[in-house]
This record gives sequence, C-alpha cells and structure tokens, in this order.
Amino acid sequence: MPEIRALLFDVFGTVVDWRSGVAREVEALASTRGVNVDGGGFADRWRARYQPAMEEVRAGRRPFVPLDVLHRENLDGVLSDLGISAFSANDLDELNLAWHRLDPWPDSVEGITRLKSRFIVGTQSNGNVALMVDMAKRAGLPWDVILGAEVTGHYKPSPQSYAEACRLLALPPEQCMLVAAHNSDLAAAREACGMRTAFVARPFEYGAERDSKPTSEYDFVARDLVDLASQLGC
Amino acid sequence: MPEIRALLFDVFGTVVDWRSGVAREVEALASTRGVNVDGGGFADRWRARYQPAMEEVRAGRRPFVPLDVLHRENLDGVLSDLGISAFSANDLDELNLAWHRLDPWPDSVEGITRLKSRFIVGTQSNGNVALMVDMAKRAGLPWDVILGAEVTGHYKPSPQSYAEACRLLALPPEQCMLVAAHNSDLAAAREACGMRTAFVARPFEYGAERDSKPTSEYDFVARDLVDLASQLGC
Repeated sequence: MPEIRALLFDVFGTVVDWRSGVAREVEALASTRGVNVDGGGFADRWRARYQPAMEEVRAGRRPFVPLDVLHRENLDGVLSDLGISAFSANDLDELNLAWHRLDPWPDSVEGITRLKSRFIVGTQSNGNVALMVDMAKRAGLPWDVILGAEVTGHYKPSPQSYAEACRLLALPPEQCMLVAAHNSDLAAAREACGMRTAFVARPFEYGAERDSKPTSEYDFVARDLVDLASQLGC
Repeated sequence: MPEIRALLFDVFGTVVDWRSGVAREVEALASTRGVNVDGGGFADRWRARYQPAMEEVRAGRRPFVPLDVLHRENLDGVLSDLGISAFSANDLDELNLAWHRLDPWPDSVEGITRLKSRFIVGTQSNGNVALMVDMAKRAGLPWDVILGAEVTGHYKPSPQSYAEACRLLALPPEQCMLVAAHNSDLAAAREACGMRTAFVARPFEYGAERDSKPTSEYDFVARDLVDLASQLGC
C-alpha cells in the first residue's frame, strides 16, 4: 500500500464533544431568560435535524448553504417543537455559535499534535470554514488545513466531498485517511473514493456510555486519538 | 474602526523568497543534466509569465485551473525561450514543485507565530491548496487556515478573491487585513473590498536590493513581519 500522507478528520463527535458544549450553552441562556430547558435533550433534538437538513442539499433540492445557516434554521425548528419563545433573535444568533465553541475530547489536542509531526492533518467536516477556524483557535487544534463541506461544495457522505478534498491536497485517495467515529462516514470514504480509514471509539458522544464499535474492517481501529498517534508511530 | 480579527497574507514575495528557492532548484537540476543555467534569471523569466497566465483566467478566457497547472505550462514556455531541452518530463514535474519548497524570509515564522496569538492568520495567495500546505509543513508556517485562489475560485486581484475570503471567515472586510509587500494587491483589497491593509517591505524580493515602499496610505507599514507583530501588540 502507498504511504499515508494526510489524515482528514471528521470533527463533530470525533474530535469535539458537541452534546456537552451545546447543552452547556443552551442551559446558560435559558437560565438568564427564566426558561427551564434540559440541555442534553435540546442538543439531541438540534442534532437530529442535522442530517435531514443536509439531505436537502445533497439531493439537489436546495443549493449549497453553509452549516451555520442550516444550524440556525434547525434551531428555530427545535424551539418551535418545544414551544419556547423566550429567546430574542440576538440570543438565537449567539446560541447558534455554540457549535463554534465546542470542547475537544481530552485526547484530541495531544493526539492531533502528535499526528501533525508526520502527516498533514486537516478537517473533513460538514462544518463551515468560520466554524472550524473559531473552534480550532479556541481549543488549540493545530490543523494544517481546513477542508470540508464549504470548501468542496459537498456535504458528506456525498462521494464528491471526499474526492474533492483529496484533489485539493494533490494526493491520491490511497494516501489520505479519514479519521472518524462513525461507520457510515468511513464506509463512504472508502467505498466511494478509495480513502484509507481509521475508526476512533467515542462511546460518550451521545451522553451516557454506549457502544462505539467498528462494523467493518478499517486500516486502523483506535481507542482515541492518542492511541491512533501511537499506532501510527507518532 | 472595528477590531481587526483576521490577517490574510500574500505569500510569494511577502512570506517566502520565491526567487532564491526557484534559482537553487533549477541550478541543482541543471548541473545534474549538464546544462548551464543562471538560476536567478530563470526564476525571473518563470515569474514574468505568472500574471499573464492568471489574466487568462481572470478575464474569463479560460476556466479556473490551479496555479500548479499554470506554473507547469509557464515552465515549458521558459525552456522553449531558452532553448533548453535536456530535462525529462519527470524532471519538469519535480522542478515545478520548487514553488512548494520555498524558504520563508528570516522573520516570517517568528512574526506569523506571534501574530497568531491574537489574530486568525491565513493565506490569501494565488497558490493552490497543496502548494500552500506543502510549503507550510516544510517551513513551519503556522497558518490557521489556507484560503486563496483555489478556495475562492478567483485569482487576485479580482475583487471576488478578497470578498470571498472574508465571507468564508464570516467576517466583514473591515475586520480582515491583507498583509502584502505589493502595492497593487493592497490597493485592490482596500478599494474593491474594503479590507484593512498592512504593507511589509521586501527589498530583496527580486534579488539585488531595490525600493520596496508604500505608494499610498495603509493602516500599517512594517519593516518585516516581526515589526508588524510588535506594532499590533503581539
């Protein structure tokens, strides 16, 4: 097999803990507005609207818009479902940026920093550029390059999202490895594009511990990103 | 004036010394092939074809292609002008990557590292993504984000090249500052887009020392990138 040159990372769930970060911010806002909200449940509802919103773009029913726009529309949907009307438009624009302020898992910065010593490390996220840059600056994630949906014009798991990321790096897909905690993302990267694959377990992505296991064969299976760095000799 | 949040850098000439790097590589190759080449003169000829090649794209006479493609075509032109035919196709593909291996000016890494502590630091170059990533990994340039022609789809100084870079950062142009050694680039960023501007002197860009002076008013005028960092309180 050819040498791996670049590691492209799924971000939400794989590198950062979206559920705790969103829950924390919505609870803080709710308390200042005198509303009672279960932050974790709110985060789950917001996230549940993520794939259907992107599917409108993937299916060609809507032109590409950045994830910040989809997140903001989805937030309105969650509030409508829950009958919450105590937040101002300003509150909601600010709350929408909770996704820019997510915390990394405890191993992420160390793992990616070690991996950066031998590989190009980049994002291959459905998050938009500003979201990824703000998150990285706040969390200290040392990306070499921000790729992903807004740069390629395609949301994962569209085949073009993976192929275009490799093309931008001027590398054949066999020299690029997707690092993700999600089997569907890894399967698409391998089957649609021929990328290498590394599965990272994230049993607490949805709050309470649950199974986070590979459902097929990947090039690497790791407990976390520090473990992946060790497996790759970094 | 609103607070500056992002610094976007011109790269060839402002951050890296293209002439010495290209000269070094062409002379090394020529000596192994038994050809006598003046490396600096060769670099000047190669660079002289840069603006006319991009103008074909800017003027809409040709669809966007990455700079690696234009560099490779321009290299053929230089060799034809000089009557050099001793290089193989492989030689030329490898020599074309000399632009990926340029050295930074002595102050660039320190200056950008200090600026990164307070600002988003990104490339706003006509170089393509792979070129910028390869250069940064080799030279230790700590970019937060790789923007520029291949990401925006527009070569500078097209107005869209600047506007689209600011839009990707989700910042108004008044919060983004172009850092460049070239008056024409800075004038376009300010006049077409409303970006802030910082001029950096690079008197040795073309080999022998020559004038490198601002020809209009900019927000900052700096001797080098370390001086710019000091002026910006970093």
